[in-house]
Amino acid sequence: MIGDVTLNWPSVIEFGSGRLEKLKEHLGGCRRVFILSDPPIMTKIEPVVGELKSQSIEVQVSTDVVPEPPFEALERLLEPVRTFDPDAVVGVGGGSAMDLAKLVAVLFSGAQRAEEIIGIGKVKTRKVKLVTVSTTSGTGSEVTPIAVLTDIQHKLKKGMVSTFLVPDVAIVDPELTLTLPPAITAATGMDAMTHCIEQYTNRHAHPIIDNIALAGIRLIAANLETAVHSGDSLEARTAMALGSLYGGLGLGPVNTAAVHALAYPLGGEFKIPHGVSNSVLLPFVMDFNLPACVDKYADIAEAVGIPPHGSREEMAKQGILKIREISERCGIPSSIHEFGIPESAIPSMAEAAMKVKRLLDNNPRTVDLEGAESIYRKAYQGVVE
Amino acid sequence: MIGDVTLNWPSVIEFGSGRLEKLKEHLGGCRRVFILSDPPIMTKIEPVVGELKSQSIEVQVSTDVVPEPPFEALERLLEPVRTFDPDAVVGVGGGSAMDLAKLVAVLFSGAQRAEEIIGIGKVKTRKVKLVTVSTTSGTGSEVTPIAVLTDIQHKLKKGMVSTFLVPDVAIVDPELTLTLPPAITAATGMDAMTHCIEQYTNRHAHPIIDNIALAGIRLIAANLETAVHSGDSLEARTAMALGSLYGGLGLGPVNTAAVHALAYPLGGEFKIPHGVSNSVLLPFVMDFNLPACVDKYADIAEAVGIPPHGSREEMAKQGILKIREISERCGIPSSIHEFGIPESAIPSMAEAAMKVKRLLDNNPRTVDLEGAESIYRKAYQGVVE
Repeated sequence: MIGDVTLNWPSVIEFGSGRLEKLKEHLGGCRRVFILSDPPIMTKIEPVVGELKSQSIEVQVSTDVVPEPPFEALERLLEPVRTFDPDAVVGVGGGSAMDLAKLVAVLFSGAQRAEEIIGIGKVKTRKVKLVTVSTTSGTGSEVTPIAVLTDIQHKLKKGMVSTFLVPDVAIVDPELTLTLPPAITAATGMDAMTHCIEQYTNRHAHPIIDNIALAGIRLIAANLETAVHSGDSLEARTAMALGSLYGGLGLGPVNTAAVHALAYPLGGEFKIPHGVSNSVLLPFVMDFNLPACVDKYADIAEAVGIPPHGSREEMAKQGILKIREISERCGIPSSIHEFGIPESAIPSMAEAAMKVKRLLDNNPRTVDLEGAESIYRKAYQGVVE
Repeated sequence: MIGDVTLNWPSVIEFGSGRLEKLKEHLGGCRRVFILSDPPIMTKIEPVVGELKSQSIEVQVSTDVVPEPPFEALERLLEPVRTFDPDAVVGVGGGSAMDLAKLVAVLFSGAQRAEEIIGIGKVKTRKVKLVTVSTTSGTGSEVTPIAVLTDIQHKLKKGMVSTFLVPDVAIVDPELTLTLPPAITAATGMDAMTHCIEQYTNRHAHPIIDNIALAGIRLIAANLETAVHSGDSLEARTAMALGSLYGGLGLGPVNTAAVHALAYPLGGEFKIPHGVSNSVLLPFVMDFNLPACVDKYADIAEAVGIPPHGSREEMAKQGILKIREISERCGIPSSIHEFGIPESAIPSMAEAAMKVKRLLDNNPRTVDLEGAESIYRKAYQGVVE
């Protein structure tokens, strides 16, 4: 029996090469537009800013984006935006830029503080138009109700989830990803792969999202290596952009699970980029989850290109190895010890991960403190059994 | 290379059994709500109206819905709604009720007349919230930018397409379809099947919609007969509701093709229900299109349950027969002559169909006047070659 689900997506998604040109159209009725952009993409955004200004739209641009942004990075943005008082906020970039823009849009009025909206459904309203333009293929943030900030003091990532954080318009233009360096292409691509896998095998999976997630896994498995090693392939970039969009569409309705929960401490405490943390942990969490989802992992194996043969369990195991192989071929480290993190940090990381209950609850197999430690230990050595 | 596409869907889609209860939540901030409902579903809507009123929301309800609604049916609704001056319009029912509600929402202010918005992109704005609640599994109107009215004078259906006709919230609750009579279940279900098939084989097909459409075909082929013959099966009803939603999601981005174009005169002139017209024409249009899309039809054959074997062409042909078989088993007539339409009407129907250029342009094989006539003649006799 098919269960129920709420799909809360942007009412407009512009997908495809050259779709950045639609930005000015979607800002047509606005008078004061605040744009937060990742610095490297500003050359592409400047002409749009010029066009907006020529339509008598006031534009304020900031490039004050930092990776894995802490609460302080958001605070720095809020005051000048409050003074500018926009009627539209645009986030252009990867997850950090888009998440910050989403939070600016709901918080600049000062009615709520960032600390008050941590968790699910805490945002009271949003009064300005919100547009996202993604320039990496991974985060999916362009279409999600989620934003994540780093709590430096507690060395943890904190998630905010609200329908008011879903953008009105999301633009996914693969041309904007053509100049993305190989390492970021790899990390963000494996992040998207993780989104799709954690949705498909989720305790709260839904057929609508299963269908999208499997399509995402197929696209990413078939195109990530080309996108990393031949970054100027618009074909591979477009396929990756779609795979990433697919991964994003499931984050609101179904969301991620133990990989993301265990990745939070790697990012929060050791500043490992989000996609890299996910990628390193993914095969080990899959290995841990295997008894709980043999069939779904076998489906995933087919989606990553393993021809059907042998038992479902055999297929499932080969799928896990294949995913690790893709990650390695893209140059992502395959063990935690390569990051220079001391093995002695594992117990505290496991304790920190256990606090990400919102995501652990989605995992197909229950992860307790012992389970989290064992996953970290195996990922530390980097040997899949 | 994956092409570009604009997805313009409701920002909230509530799917699943019992989701009608979310209606009051989504109308929470409103003060004056106009509800247009199909009469048979009023018993389910009355409790919601009571709850809204208890929240001090003024509610005006109309059940003035007619099948294949003419422009006059819309005109009758507009004046009282103008007087009531709602801040939200809700359409509850099948395609007719939802289409009328969508048009009321954009037209009741009087700024534009219905005749002015025929075609694509003619609606200037919409100032009220628009919510749809679908009670059949077929039209897909709950999530589309489309509304269709019948021009009685010219005996033709006229389509209006605009982003302002996309509802803000769509509720798809399969419980509301449990009491749908077998004939309507069959006709609307085959309408949904036609949507999916015409999207998958569309000249403007897109992988995002292909994926959804194929999933829709699978669900409908596997569940329509049960929904027709065991209408109280919530499982089959839920699967049909999802299949129909899938068919609806592709109508905006990709839309239908020759089946719908050729069905318009059957509805406009001879009042044959939309789903029945589509169902009768579907195998004959597929047969006509076969040379242009053997591979896609073979995919469809697999989706309707034909085990892979033989050549792709053989598969494609078996798929067409299977679709016709499903339609027949659901009690839908398999030839036009069964409607009592004179064969002499074919040339004028073909001429009328040629005017539906918007949809004919989507067809995988070019349909000229001669082609349209030949399809009608074969459908008249009802013999698939």
